[in-house]
Amino acid sequence: MKRTPLLDSIRSPEDIKRIDADRLPELAEEIRSFLVEKVSGTGGHLASNLGVVELTIALHRVFDSPADKLIYDVGHQAYVHKILTGRAAEFGSLRQKDGISGFPKRSESIHDAFGTGHASTSVSAALGILRAEKMLGGSGHVVAVTGDGALTGGLCFEALNDAGQSKQPLIVVLNDNDMSISHNVGALNRHLNRMRTSRSYRRFKHNTAEFLQKLPKVGQKMFDGALRMKNRIKYFLIPNVLFEELGFTYLGPVDGHDIESLIEVLKRAKRLDAPVIIHAVTKKGKGYALAEENPAKFHGIGKFDIDTGIVQKSGGESNSSVFGKTLAELAAKDSRIVAITAAMPLGTGLDRFQDVFPSRFYDVGIAEEHAVTMAAGMAAAGAKPVAAVYSTFLQRAYDELLHDICLQGLPVVFGVDRAGLVGEDGETHQGVYDIAFLRTLPGMCILSPATQEELAAMIPLALSQNGPVAIRYNRGILMRAPLTTPVVIGKWEEIRFVAEGKIVLLASGRMVKTALLAAEGLPVSIVNARCLKPMDEEMLQRIKEHGKPVFTLEDGILSGGFGEAVKAKIGSDVEVLSFGVGEQPVRHASVAEQDKLCGMDADTVREKLLQYLEREA
Amino acid sequence: MKRTPLLDSIRSPEDIKRIDADRLPELAEEIRSFLVEKVSGTGGHLASNLGVVELTIALHRVFDSPADKLIYDVGHQAYVHKILTGRAAEFGSLRQKDGISGFPKRSESIHDAFGTGHASTSVSAALGILRAEKMLGGSGHVVAVTGDGALTGGLCFEALNDAGQSKQPLIVVLNDNDMSISHNVGALNRHLNRMRTSRSYRRFKHNTAEFLQKLPKVGQKMFDGALRMKNRIKYFLIPNVLFEELGFTYLGPVDGHDIESLIEVLKRAKRLDAPVIIHAVTKKGKGYALAEENPAKFHGIGKFDIDTGIVQKSGGESNSSVFGKTLAELAAKDSRIVAITAAMPLGTGLDRFQDVFPSRFYDVGIAEEHAVTMAAGMAAAGAKPVAAVYSTFLQRAYDELLHDICLQGLPVVFGVDRAGLVGEDGETHQGVYDIAFLRTLPGMCILSPATQEELAAMIPLALSQNGPVAIRYNRGILMRAPLTTPVVIGKWEEIRFVAEGKIVLLASGRMVKTALLAAEGLPVSIVNARCLKPMDEEMLQRIKEHGKPVFTLEDGILSGGFGEAVKAKIGSDVEVLSFGVGEQPVRHASVAEQDKLCGMDADTVREKLLQYLEREA
Repeated sequence: MKRTPLLDSIRSPEDIKRIDADRLPELAEEIRSFLVEKVSGTGGHLASNLGVVELTIALHRVFDSPADKLIYDVGHQAYVHKILTGRAAEFGSLRQKDGISGFPKRSESIHDAFGTGHASTSVSAALGILRAEKMLGGSGHVVAVTGDGALTGGLCFEALNDAGQSKQPLIVVLNDNDMSISHNVGALNRHLNRMRTSRSYRRFKHNTAEFLQKLPKVGQKMFDGALRMKNRIKYFLIPNVLFEELGFTYLGPVDGHDIESLIEVLKRAKRLDAPVIIHAVTKKGKGYALAEENPAKFHGIGKFDIDTGIVQKSGGESNSSVFGKTLAELAAKDSRIVAITAAMPLGTGLDRFQDVFPSRFYDVGIAEEHAVTMAAGMAAAGAKPVAAVYSTFLQRAYDELLHDICLQGLPVVFGVDRAGLVGEDGETHQGVYDIAFLRTLPGMCILSPATQEELAAMIPLALSQNGPVAIRYNRGILMRAPLTTPVVIGKWEEIRFVAEGKIVLLASGRMVKTALLAAEGLPVSIVNARCLKPMDEEMLQRIKEHGKPVFTLEDGILSGGFGEAVKAKIGSDVEVLSFGVGEQPVRHASVAEQDKLCGMDADTVREKLLQYLEREA
Repeated sequence: MKRTPLLDSIRSPEDIKRIDADRLPELAEEIRSFLVEKVSGTGGHLASNLGVVELTIALHRVFDSPADKLIYDVGHQAYVHKILTGRAAEFGSLRQKDGISGFPKRSESIHDAFGTGHASTSVSAALGILRAEKMLGGSGHVVAVTGDGALTGGLCFEALNDAGQSKQPLIVVLNDNDMSISHNVGALNRHLNRMRTSRSYRRFKHNTAEFLQKLPKVGQKMFDGALRMKNRIKYFLIPNVLFEELGFTYLGPVDGHDIESLIEVLKRAKRLDAPVIIHAVTKKGKGYALAEENPAKFHGIGKFDIDTGIVQKSGGESNSSVFGKTLAELAAKDSRIVAITAAMPLGTGLDRFQDVFPSRFYDVGIAEEHAVTMAAGMAAAGAKPVAAVYSTFLQRAYDELLHDICLQGLPVVFGVDRAGLVGEDGETHQGVYDIAFLRTLPGMCILSPATQEELAAMIPLALSQNGPVAIRYNRGILMRAPLTTPVVIGKWEEIRFVAEGKIVLLASGRMVKTALLAAEGLPVSIVNARCLKPMDEEMLQRIKEHGKPVFTLEDGILSGGFGEAVKAKIGSDVEVLSFGVGEQPVRHASVAEQDKLCGMDADTVREKLLQYLEREA
C-alpha cells in the first residue's frame, strides 16, 4: 500500500480546506492510488470515480458540507466524496455486508444529502432541497453533480426545464466524460461533442498557453491571476445555447482535472444568484492507464489485479450472454427482429447483436421510457422488438409498459435482466419488484427460466406470441440442464411429481435450484413455475386436490408477488407458505447473504420443510 | 343542427382531397359547428379540438392515411381526425358505452395508427413506427402531432433527442397553443413564447402583408406563388436553436388556422428527408367565443348549453375540492406545507392553495417524475410536500416513488386523485392500478376514504407521519357523513360489527357505499378498510376467528390488489371472495356502467350475498 499522508490527515471536509492549494494535486494522486488499491480488493465502480477526483476535491474546497448540499447523480461516482467525508477507513468493506454502500445514503452520513442509484434524479432532488431550504430560511448552497449520460434521461430534462425558469441559484455540475455506461447516444451528445471540440475553444486554449509561456515567471501570485483571467474569459467564450435557452448561466467547458480552474469556476458559480451549469470535461479512468484505455470494463468491476487488470473470473457464461447470443441467432433467421437497449449493450449481452446487426440495433441512451414506447411503435408497425433492460431500470417505464404496450396488446419481448436480488449494488438496484409490477399489467405474460437452456428456449417462444412477454432472469448464472419438457405459456414443469411429495415446492427462476437443494432426499414435490403469468391453472387445480401444503419460492417481493397470486387462487383450500423478499429494502451484501437475510436460502427452506414434514407425519 | 354539406360529403380522408382548396375554410367552419353541437350533447374535450380543425384538415389533405401514419399525442384532440376518417356519424355516442372513444384507438379505426391518452408518447411511438416501416420496406410518412404542453414531459425529450440524431424523416407537428391543460410552465415555454412574439417575426409578417396588399391582383396563381414565397422565407426566418440543436429542421412558426400555409409547410416537410419540426401556433377554443375566453373550462367538459356555456351540474362538492380546501386550511397553520401539481391545479383542486400561497405552490408542468423526485428533495430538506396527481398519471413516476421516496422513507403526502374507475375517458385514464403498484412500495402507507369527512381528516394525519402516505380518492363525490371514529394508520372501521354478520364485507373508498347498498337489510357485517396498507392485523385476526366468509370490495384491479392481500393474510382460514376490476382493461362508459361490467356494482354484490347467506343457512 502506497503512503497517503495528505489523505490520512483528512477526517472531515474542513480538513481539505487546511491543505496548501499547491498540494491539492498531490492529494488527488493519493486518492487515485487509494481508489485503485481498495477497489481492486473489493470490486466496485472504479473508472467514474477516477474521473472525478479533482472535481470532488474542488467541491469540498469551495462548499461547506453538510451546510451546503452535494447531490451526486447515479451515485456510483461518490467514492471520492465518501473518502473525503470521513469514510476512507471503511473502504475495505465497500459494498460488502455491514460495510459502506457503493452509493450515497442519507443513513450513512450527514454529508450524503440525498440517496441516489438510478440516473437523472439529482437536479430534481437538488431543486427540491434548494426550494425547501429557501422557504425554511436556510442559506446553504445546493449542488447537483450529474454525468453527461444522465442528461439523456427525461427526468433530468424535466428538472432542468423547471430549474431554469425558477431563477433559484441551483448549481449543476455537468461531469462530461462522453460516456454513460457504454457510450452516449443521441443528439444531445453530439451537441456536447461539438462544444468539446469547438475550434474557438481549442484555438483560445492554445493561444493562452503560448501567451502564458511567454510571460516572465514573476511568481505564483501573478500566474494565478493570469489563470483566473484565462478561465474567466474561457467561461464566456463558448456560450452554450442549449442550457442558456433553458434559463441556465453556462460556465465552461473547464478542464475537470485542473483543480485550480475548478475551484475558480465553482467560486464563480457560488457567487451567482441564478441557476448555473458548470461544464467540466473529465476522463473516465483518469490516472490508471488500464482504466483509461478500457473505461467500460472498469466501470463496475469485480476484484482485479492492479498490474494486469485481470478480473477474478466468476466461471461460466452469464445469463445476459445466453440471452444476447440466442437473440442474435434468431435474428439471423428473422429479419423483423430488432434489439433495443437503454445504455446497456454490454450489461445485457446485446453487444453481440449490435456487432452482427448494427442497423437493427437501437441504443437509446439512459431513456427507458422512450425505449419502451418506441418498441411499442415498432411492434405496431409489424417489427419484432426485443428490449433488454435491467429489472430495476424497467421500473422507470411502468406507465409506458401499461399505457403503450399492454393496453394495446402489442407484441414486444422484454429481457428483464438482473431480476431478483442483485448483491453488492444494494437497495437501489434490487430487481425484486418486477414480478409484482408486471403482474398488474393487463395481458403481460411473465416467464422465468430455471436454467440457461430454458432461457434460450423462452426467447423464440416469446417472439411467437401475439402480445407482450417479459422474460425475467437473475444477475449471474442459472443452472445448466438439458430441457426435458418444452416451455409452454401458462404451463409449469413437474420436476418431482405433485402426487408424490408430502409438500409441494412451487419455485421460479434461480429459486428452483434453491428448491432442489432444500428438498434433497426429502419426500417433497418440486414444480418449476416457469410461467408466472398466466399461471398453470390445471396444475394449481391438481395441487389443490392433492391437498398438501404448498411452499412458494420467488426471487422478488412478497407484496403483490407470485406467492400472493398462488394464495389468491388456492390458499383457501391448501396451506401456502411463501418465501421471498419482505417489506424491508435489502441492503448491499452478496446474493447468498441477501438470500439468508430474507430467509429464502436453501437451509432456511429445508428447515421449514423438515418442520412441516414432522407435523404432517 | 346547422347544415354541414361539405362535411357530409366526407366518408374517408380521400374525400378531403376532392374538395376545392378555397372551400376548405368552409369545411373548417362546418366542423366547428359540428364539434360544438355534438360535444355540448355528450360532454368531452372541446377547446383543444376547436384549436386543431385547420391543422387536421391540412394533415389529411397532404398525407394519405392509413399508408401515412398520424399519431396524436395525448389524443383528446383527435376528434377532428375521427370526424374526417369516417366516424362523424358516431359522434352522438362519443365517450359513451359502446360508442366511439374520446381517444385514438387502434381497435377503432385503421386511421388510428397508435393509441394515446397520456401525454408525451407520440414522438417515441412515431419514431418506432418509422424505423420499423423503413426496415420492413415501407415508404409511408409518419407524423407526430404534439402539443406544447406535452413537450415538458421527459419522455418527449428522450424521443426528440433520439429522433434528432437518427436522421430519419420523422415529422413532428408542434401544436403550440400555449396551454397544456392549465397553463404551461417552465423554461421551455418561455422559449416558445419568445418565438411567438419575436419582433423579427412580427415585423416580417407585417411588412409582407403590406407588400402583398400592394401587389396588383394578377390572379390566384401568382398570389399562391407569393404566399408560398412568404411562407418559405418565414420558415427560415426564425431558426429555432433548441430544436435545431437536437437535430431537427425547424419550420415555423406558422399560423395554425391558415389552412393554405399549413398545407404549404406540411408539403415542404414531406419533401425533406430529415427530422423536421413544424411549429404551428393555434388558439384553443378557436371559433367558439366562450371556449376562446375560457379554454380551461372547455378543456374537458360535461354536457353544456351552447349559448350560455353553462354546464349541467353534477351536484355537490368534488373530492378534489375537499382535498384542496382542506390542504389550504392546514397550510395556513403550518408554513412548511407546500403543494405540487403536474399541470393540474384545477383538476386536483389545488387552485385554491395556489391563490392563497403562491410562493409555496409548484406547478411543474406535465412532468410527474420530476414532481415526485422534487417532492423527495423538499422532504429531505424539512418541508412538508403534498403532491396531488391523478392516479393514472402517478403511474409515470413509479420508479421515483420507489427509488427517491420510499427507499429513503421520506415523508411526502400524495393526493391520488381520480383513483379507481373514471368513466368516459376509458382505458388509458382508469385509476385502477394504484392500489396494486403502491402496495409494492416499501413503507408506503395507503389510505382510502369512504366519505369526504374522512378524506379531510386523512390529510393532517398523513402530514403528521414520518414516512410516505398516499391518499386515494375517486373522481367525483364521496358520501358525506360525520366522522364517528378517528382515522388511525393501520386501523379499519367497523360500520356493522364483525361479530354480528354472517358474512363480512371489507370495502374501501367509494365501495363502502356500494357495500352499504348491497347489504341493506341483510345480516352482514361491514368494515370500512380505510387504510389499505398497513392493513388492520388485529381486525383481520378477529375476522379469521369469526370464521365466516369475507367479501372484499375495491375500486381497483384484483391482480396484486387489496383482495389478494387479504387472501394472503387470512385466505387459508376463511373463504375470501374479491370484487374489483379484472384483467381486461375497462372501456369508456359511465362509472356506474363500468361497475356493472366489472361485476362490482351493488346489485351484483347483493346477489352474491344472498347466495352465500342461503348456503350458510
